[in-house]
Amino acid sequence: MSGKKYSEEHKILFYETDCTRRVTVGMLVNIMMLASQDQSNELGVTVKKVKGLGLGWVITQHLIEIKRMPQIYEKVNVITEAASYNRYFCYRDFWIKSENGEELAKMHSVFVLMDQNKRKIARILPELIEPYSSEYTKKIERLPEPEKLSSDEQGRTKNYQVRFMDIDSNEHVNNVHYFDWMMDALPSNFLLNHSLKKMNIKYKQEVHYGDTVESRAYIDENDQEIKTVHQIKTEQDLCCTASCEWLKNN
Amino acid sequence: MSGKKYSEEHKILFYETDCTRRVTVGMLVNIMMLASQDQSNELGVTVKKVKGLGLGWVITQHLIEIKRMPQIYEKVNVITEAASYNRYFCYRDFWIKSENGEELAKMHSVFVLMDQNKRKIARILPELIEPYSSEYTKKIERLPEPEKLSSDEQGRTKNYQVRFMDIDSNEHVNNVHYFDWMMDALPSNFLLNHSLKKMNIKYKQEVHYGDTVESRAYIDENDQEIKTVHQIKTEQDLCCTASCEWLKNN
Repeated sequence: MSGKKYSEEHKILFYETDCTRRVTVGMLVNIMMLASQDQSNELGVTVKKVKGLGLGWVITQHLIEIKRMPQIYEKVNVITEAASYNRYFCYRDFWIKSENGEELAKMHSVFVLMDQNKRKIARILPELIEPYSSEYTKKIERLPEPEKLSSDEQGRTKNYQVRFMDIDSNEHVNNVHYFDWMMDALPSNFLLNHSLKKMNIKYKQEVHYGDTVESRAYIDENDQEIKTVHQIKTEQDLCCTASCEWLKNN
Repeated sequence: MSGKKYSEEHKILFYETDCTRRVTVGMLVNIMMLASQDQSNELGVTVKKVKGLGLGWVITQHLIEIKRMPQIYEKVNVITEAASYNRYFCYRDFWIKSENGEELAKMHSVFVLMDQNKRKIARILPELIEPYSSEYTKKIERLPEPEKLSSDEQGRTKNYQVRFMDIDSNEHVNNVHYFDWMMDALPSNFLLNHSLKKMNIKYKQEVHYGDTVESRAYIDENDQEIKTVHQIKTEQDLCCTASCEWLKNN
């Protein structure tokens, strides 16, 4: 048993790519989230309706696998399915396929409902989940944790002040902007010469307008593998952690 | 006489909007530039071809008028025309219309060809302009200059470090990122309560990866009008200036 599938075509726009002419990982996630929003709108579970109940959908984790990052002007198919849910968590899968059906990327994401006033996780309301025909399960998925930095001095850092346009309808930084903070903390030479293959990103604390965040990134490279470990901190809190696996470009 | 017109539909994506659910001005310009890129690709004047000649299209000025900013999920029509050119400058017009033909925004832009090695303006090559059937004219347009700040201390500032994803195929900050720097330097209360009606933005110097820019913004409000004046500076150079006209939201 599983939820309703939804798919849509998307043509990669130049402003979804960087100077390598490939989609940035933040935009890859945007393109997938777009499909889930379009499905939600089609099923009548609009952002407006959710907000009207004093709630908002919030991401707590993404597990991303990338076989080949889509390129500028490429036509892709985005498929999504709200697979299952329990009292507090909804699990959703995404796939991006090329025009000839080759799988380019997939993502497994955890959604929760946030009470907009209390800023706390709320129970999943039946009226907000039933339209997707997801499977109800008592099981809470035990997803792998992103690797952690061994100390607060490991790696290199850059600071970012939250911008007005980083804020979404939940009045906090949209989950997608963390990707730019994390990637940009890596040296440009690394970004130009490597391709992201896997990313595990976990959100712990909201970041708000006016906050300054420190993005710390550590490159862990040996004969077998190339990994990076990331964290985003405000002055008070560790807000987000991630670990990535990379391949050297040919 | 005038150039070939090109038009395309575009559905506003959630990540082209901010928390007001309206398109950001930077994304409005992206959506228009997308139409000109699509026209160029259709006519065989691809970025690749231009780059192969050691050149790149660069913007030196945009004059923007906005009647109503498009909203999330809205379907719009984007129309563009490479109207005329002289030895060094190409003039292009853009229009954004609603589904029922109402004009939402228009833009008049000045393009030049930049020599990628010398980082200097190059003569317009016939093979790169002829496909558009633009009108050749000896006349150089005298467009209004954006208003200037009266001193380097006027207004309020924010600093931004150029990110890897700000850089485009010309190896400098894409013209669109200046909009976010300029708007974000205004208080959030101002952005939430006003709508941008006109913007005149002029680019003077390139900004590169690794640069830090200072975005300075001054609000000039009286009974008759609400204006803002903007500048973007690196340590060495005044890189970009702009002036805007706003209306209070109802």
